[in-house]
Amino acid sequence: IAKRLEKFKTTIFTQMSSLAIKHGAINLGQGFPNFDGPEFVKQAAIQAINEGKNQYARGFGVSELNAAIAARFKKDTGLVIDPEKEVTVTSGCTEAIAATILGLVNPGDEVILFAPFYDSYEATLSMAGADIKCITLCPPDFAVPLDELRSKISKKTRAILMNTPHNPTGKMFTRDELNEIASLCIENDVLVFSDEVYDKLAFEMEHISIASLPGMYERTVTMNSLGKTFSLTGWKIGWAIAPPHLIWGVRQAHAFLTFATSTPMQWAAATALQAPDSYYEELRMDYLAKKKILVEGLKDVGFTVFPSSGTYFVVVDHTPFGLKNDIEFCEYLIKEVGVVAIPTSVFYLDPEEGKNLVRFTFCKDEGTLRSAVERMKAKL
Amino acid sequence: IAKRLEKFKTTIFTQMSSLAIKHGAINLGQGFPNFDGPEFVKQAAIQAINEGKNQYARGFGVSELNAAIAARFKKDTGLVIDPEKEVTVTSGCTEAIAATILGLVNPGDEVILFAPFYDSYEATLSMAGADIKCITLCPPDFAVPLDELRSKISKKTRAILMNTPHNPTGKMFTRDELNEIASLCIENDVLVFSDEVYDKLAFEMEHISIASLPGMYERTVTMNSLGKTFSLTGWKIGWAIAPPHLIWGVRQAHAFLTFATSTPMQWAAATALQAPDSYYEELRMDYLAKKKILVEGLKDVGFTVFPSSGTYFVVVDHTPFGLKNDIEFCEYLIKEVGVVAIPTSVFYLDPEEGKNLVRFTFCKDEGTLRSAVERMKAKL
Ligand SMILES: CSCCC(=O)C(=O)O
Ligand SMILES: CSCCC(=O)C(=O)O
Repeated sequence: IAKRLEKFKTTIFTQMSSLAIKHGAINLGQGFPNFDGPEFVKQAAIQAINEGKNQYARGFGVSELNAAIAARFKKDTGLVIDPEKEVTVTSGCTEAIAATILGLVNPGDEVILFAPFYDSYEATLSMAGADIKCITLCPPDFAVPLDELRSKISKKTRAILMNTPHNPTGKMFTRDELNEIASLCIENDVLVFSDEVYDKLAFEMEHISIASLPGMYERTVTMNSLGKTFSLTGWKIGWAIAPPHLIWGVRQAHAFLTFATSTPMQWAAATALQAPDSYYEELRMDYLAKKKILVEGLKDVGFTVFPSSGTYFVVVDHTPFGLKNDIEFCEYLIKEVGVVAIPTSVFYLDPEEGKNLVRFTFCKDEGTLRSAVERMKAKL
Repeated sequence: IAKRLEKFKTTIFTQMSSLAIKHGAINLGQGFPNFDGPEFVKQAAIQAINEGKNQYARGFGVSELNAAIAARFKKDTGLVIDPEKEVTVTSGCTEAIAATILGLVNPGDEVILFAPFYDSYEATLSMAGADIKCITLCPPDFAVPLDELRSKISKKTRAILMNTPHNPTGKMFTRDELNEIASLCIENDVLVFSDEVYDKLAFEMEHISIASLPGMYERTVTMNSLGKTFSLTGWKIGWAIAPPHLIWGVRQAHAFLTFATSTPMQWAAATALQAPDSYYEELRMDYLAKKKILVEGLKDVGFTVFPSSGTYFVVVDHTPFGLKNDIEFCEYLIKEVGVVAIPTSVFYLDPEEGKNLVRFTFCKDEGTLRSAVERMKAKL
């Protein structure tokens, strides 16, 4: 294995999902729904396949999808962009992240990351040879320590890689935090790479794209995907939005990482993104009910549950149950209780920092969430 | 844009396919069929979507597909491999190439490449920080200059990146060439990354996987895909096969480049790979008829056509028509004749070497091939 990847282990999602199957445990680990995506989107994919939309798509996206992405971005942020020049379709947001980093970051550039972070961020920065400067967001509110952020910005800082709503904590960046980050970026000529795949799963406050703040669009790559919002995580349709001078790097990396993304799935995604507002509102209400079941259940079980404003995740402190760390707790949970959660220490540069926290997802039907809670009540 | 990608232009396939649309020209450029893939494969994808196989697949592949890939590899090469430990499904062969190179090559490692080469090879080696040692295959037969190959291997050589049947020339590596390459690799402890996406389009001789030669499996990553063999280039299902100690690097790079590949398309690919031998035989016969139309037509038009043993491409010398180089010839061909071909100079480190050659594809219905030939006869 190449040195750039030497230190990484099998991703925790793969590990935990295999263990879930092996032990017949209820999987509240990896973030994929156990219910299906909407029929109209599935039918759109079937139609595309039947209509023979099965050959290479244009590298940076089927133009109808690029247009639908730009239209939704306008609705969400007020920004008018050129779908042909400022959007690139990728094979999931993971590829958008990889293409953005490999396309825009040079070896030795510094990139600021907030821990805990989705594991691909660190690995991809390592592939790009970037120097990671990490800032830890701490419970209970996971607020951004702005003084620390300011002190970590140097002449070598190329970008801040952020994620709001935030996986795994459910934290959403507040307008004040975003304003502060924006002014630091403008002052110091720093880019922002913003992963917003959970933007439609915002429960306690409004989601704000940092690209929408004054002066920020020109220095931001906004990344999103179809999977979470349309409960089709396996379709792997993502995208990056950025001004032409930044999207060029993303497009070139994408051209050589995957060349293009599944054509019929792109057509279906174009249909999905034309969903009326009511679709998103229903999704949010559904998830709110699920969230309530899980959060109240976890509290009843005896966890300290940290407030989650968005995403379909919640983070809890497992220490009331007396296990040594998050890994051991999760092993116990799988083997003795029959429930899978995600240990968070893998999302920190220093695993010690995450050792008290584990993440549960509520992207499961209500019966499954209730059963998981029952198991924990009975056996923890 | 990051330095690793600075020197690359928009891929020639994207450029040429856009020009084809703009000028209403017949597209014999980018290698995608203008006919559809087989109904049984399309129906398998539709069934998977309807059955709710729409969430994240296991990162390294849906196990039924891994098994089908291993079974076909056994049939093709006689090698028995463990589908769970030696196969990784990727988002097209382009991603298999990227994951292999980023997963196994360190900065400063030397990798040997044969020009002309598919453009992603050079770009991906640049992303990995590899030093490229390039060997040119020359018309008419594009034979491997074995002495030159021997002289280019050094202590720093990590791998030979090869492609048989070979895009763009249609050359197939002979058993003698493969034996020589194999013994050089074994002697010098060098890996082989072998892109074999056109393996089922072998017309004049038998395709040989270098992995099947004695002592080679343990040092080879064999890459392939669904797109060419099943006329579904837009589905983007590829894979890499390698022993556990090599596949680990590929899997880790893949995990962070795209995480997983479209789930319903993987199920359909598993069905496709169970096609009987007669499917492949018919495909070959169909393409043989198409090849005949194009090759004879190009000769009638007045090109020197170089023999192509495999792939759906042929390379010709355009100099009888008096244009300055391949780029100018292709521009003339699009604008004045209404046919798109691919200039080959982009497939060489030194563009001068390709300036007399252009590539045509015959993955189009016979009527289209005939019309293209007629246009050229009338206007060249
Ligand atoms: C590949 S897992 C992607 C993110 C997610 O779903 C998770 O964090 O569980
Ligand atoms: C992305 S184009 C892939 C290869 C091919 O089809 C071509 O060489 O035309």
